[in-house]
Amino acid sequence: MKSPAHRDVQIDALRDAGDARRTDAVAIEEPLEIRVMRDGLPEADDNDGTGHSLSVTMRTPGHDAELALGFLYGEGVIHAPADVVDVGHCGDTGNVIRVTVRADLPLDLARLRRNVYTTSSCGVCGKASLDAVMSSVSERRVSGDVVVRESILRTLPDILRAAQREFAETGGMHAVGVFDAGGELLASREDVGRHNAMDKLVGAALRDGALPWNDRVVLLSGRASFELLQKATMAGAPLVAAIGAPSSLAVELAESAGITLVAFLRPGGCNVYCHPQRVRAMRSDS
Amino acid sequence: MKSPAHRDVQIDALRDAGDARRTDAVAIEEPLEIRVMRDGLPEADDNDGTGHSLSVTMRTPGHDAELALGFLYGEGVIHAPADVVDVGHCGDTGNVIRVTVRADLPLDLARLRRNVYTTSSCGVCGKASLDAVMSSVSERRVSGDVVVRESILRTLPDILRAAQREFAETGGMHAVGVFDAGGELLASREDVGRHNAMDKLVGAALRDGALPWNDRVVLLSGRASFELLQKATMAGAPLVAAIGAPSSLAVELAESAGITLVAFLRPGGCNVYCHPQRVRAMRSDS
Repeated sequence: MKSPAHRDVQIDALRDAGDARRTDAVAIEEPLEIRVMRDGLPEADDNDGTGHSLSVTMRTPGHDAELALGFLYGEGVIHAPADVVDVGHCGDTGNVIRVTVRADLPLDLARLRRNVYTTSSCGVCGKASLDAVMSSVSERRVSGDVVVRESILRTLPDILRAAQREFAETGGMHAVGVFDAGGELLASREDVGRHNAMDKLVGAALRDGALPWNDRVVLLSGRASFELLQKATMAGAPLVAAIGAPSSLAVELAESAGITLVAFLRPGGCNVYCHPQRVRAMRSDS
Repeated sequence: MKSPAHRDVQIDALRDAGDARRTDAVAIEEPLEIRVMRDGLPEADDNDGTGHSLSVTMRTPGHDAELALGFLYGEGVIHAPADVVDVGHCGDTGNVIRVTVRADLPLDLARLRRNVYTTSSCGVCGKASLDAVMSSVSERRVSGDVVVRESILRTLPDILRAAQREFAETGGMHAVGVFDAGGELLASREDVGRHNAMDKLVGAALRDGALPWNDRVVLLSGRASFELLQKATMAGAPLVAAIGAPSSLAVELAESAGITLVAFLRPGGCNVYCHPQRVRAMRSDS
């Protein structure tokens, strides 16, 4: 089956062993516009009847409905599957998706607009100001719990990697996976944007009634940023592990949200940045 | 000297060789709000006299003025050092920077607002709609030229890495460097966000009168996205090389802008995606 996530291009492969003209797969990056509308209730300013544009993200096509649902969940717009009446592409490009929410869902479009207005780059989708960014760090705490053996944690990167079919094709995709405490991979998503991979995973879990992630472990294929910890906090994940480095703000958010943050997770060890009680170290394994 | 780009945190380092509580450096990630105002001409809707908020980006502190200048250059707001009257932090957090532009600079705030309004995630800073994103791909062509030996290209990643002091500390920073055709590193910048590292480098070059990068080679420490190629196009770079993978839209933009795109640049070789005439392959080296 043809994947919508990568396509072949012609390249000149320059190698010691000899140069060659050949095809190579690249990860598809395309814009997705996320629109929201209220069921049966055209808004005064929704003049074309296609809903309100909330966000444009550069994403890898596929799982677009999950991406939109996960994005809206992370922004606090929707909270349960019942909040959503319909979700589907509109137009003919495949690059606009519209989420129709129930007619009586509180929907502060002015606030959402403000949020989006001041944020044009990664990391702070949905925060209206610097103050909001900083205050959101200390707003929420996860309520779930999980304890994972370090010996199991160390195996997770290889398990996620084995599921990263598109990374194997392109070498250019992030992934996020959700595991149970025994190290079983329950779901994973890939995307050129790590925040999109997380949104897709959250959206799938929302649809399946699997949120909050009270006793789950979330693994990031790359670095841990503020934005990813923010989304993990909204999804209630008590333990977030990253194969890459964490940022200062990711550590601060994990600390205040009560999330155990593991990073530099490698076969030979890992670093635990806060709330280490959820990792049972090797030497305490019985 | 204390770096503003990283800070120490306490971690539990879990290792085969033995667990330890110790300090480790993390890359600082903080929001920067970019404001713009016109010299001596308060706008009707600039009611607090501090300028118009155009963008909030999660960045690593340091070189903030360059970041703001590079961002505005990439958005087509400013074109030359003479367009800028002043640039400096305002407020006391160090996280708001204001660029004062000359009084008669054309400044379509409504358009800029629209641009920012519909973009809340990475990759499309400053594009008002899907159509604008796609059409911008074919709008510009670089006019400069450069020819680089493949044998020199292969040496660039190690040279950039040696300049990545913050990456060495934290393991969590992107870098962008600009080289001449002989492989000399002229400047580099680091940041938790790769688009910020590029903006800082472009802003520094603008300030120094070094734009466009007609005969320069730009090297990205990670992947090549649409957004980075967009910024490289605005800066006139004829050759962009990435250590990581390119996305589909990066290849398309490079192709239409006339940029030679090299990716997966490693000691053993590289892939050339378009306009290969600027890379002199090893076996044709005299």
